[in-house]
Amino acid sequence: MAAVRTLNDLFLHTLKDIYYSERQILRALPKMMKKANSPELREAFEMHRGETEGQIERLQRIFEMLQKPARGVKCEAMDGILSEAESLMEEIEDPEVGDAGMIANAQAVEHYEITRYGTLVAWAEELGLPDAAKLLQETLDEEKNTDRKLSDLAEQRVNKAAA
Amino acid sequence: MAAVRTLNDLFLHTLKDIYYSERQILRALPKMMKKANSPELREAFEMHRGETEGQIERLQRIFEMLQKPARGVKCEAMDGILSEAESLMEEIEDPEVGDAGMIANAQAVEHYEITRYGTLVAWAEELGLPDAAKLLQETLDEEKNTDRKLSDLAEQRVNKAAA
Repeated sequence: MAAVRTLNDLFLHTLKDIYYSERQILRALPKMMKKANSPELREAFEMHRGETEGQIERLQRIFEMLQKPARGVKCEAMDGILSEAESLMEEIEDPEVGDAGMIANAQAVEHYEITRYGTLVAWAEELGLPDAAKLLQETLDEEKNTDRKLSDLAEQRVNKAAA
Repeated sequence: MAAVRTLNDLFLHTLKDIYYSERQILRALPKMMKKANSPELREAFEMHRGETEGQIERLQRIFEMLQKPARGVKCEAMDGILSEAESLMEEIEDPEVGDAGMIANAQAVEHYEITRYGTLVAWAEELGLPDAAKLLQETLDEEKNTDRKLSDLAEQRVNKAAA
């Protein structure tokens, strides 16, 4: 870890943490799409893949604004969430129960992103970086929206099918 | 991992995941209290320690309702979040910047709990377990409240002190 002395350093460190996370998510999504049983869930993952690409580009623009190379740092939290998700995907045979589990794990991913982007928006504002704050807020809104859509899909269809 | 075939199995598995997580949080909180610089943050962690004890008891009551032993399963996600938090606590020397980082990591913990309890409430309802759903909802409300309080503390004081 690079030395973290100031709020600026902490902001940059957290930016790298979420940059790494987004790229891990982008790698995990095709497997989740393949494994999804419900067409709605597959579509939701596919749409989120496009969004994730846009979110990675926003992060790259912020690294540019800060005149820092776009580089990730290993995020043990996201690695843990994705590793749990993968074990569970392999464990569950029933396709409907599998979908319920996949939605739960996708929401764990979303919530990790929501908390990190929420923090980054607040820090960007505090540090006088309104352009970065605006880009981070756009991503935060997308993540919250994805989380809500997954809740709706679970409650209206997937959980019933699994029960 | 015990075999996960039905939504009931998945519910029980997730209950064990969050039971393990809550106990890890209970172990981590004294260290965070000791490291907190702002008295308000120390108080928030202390209050959350009491809440966490109550949340563990609620989980134990749900295990009893299901006539299952209260037992955790290793949660790589929570281990990752807490391990990142610990590395960062050790890395940051400035007390105000440290507080900002600790709040961010405490919120990552809260968001993991929010997503898991949110899922558990929905599944308990689907599975016809209204008493369990009620207890899980109480904890979910507490976690959301803690997350909001941490955001307020960050925005009103800690981030300004760190910047």
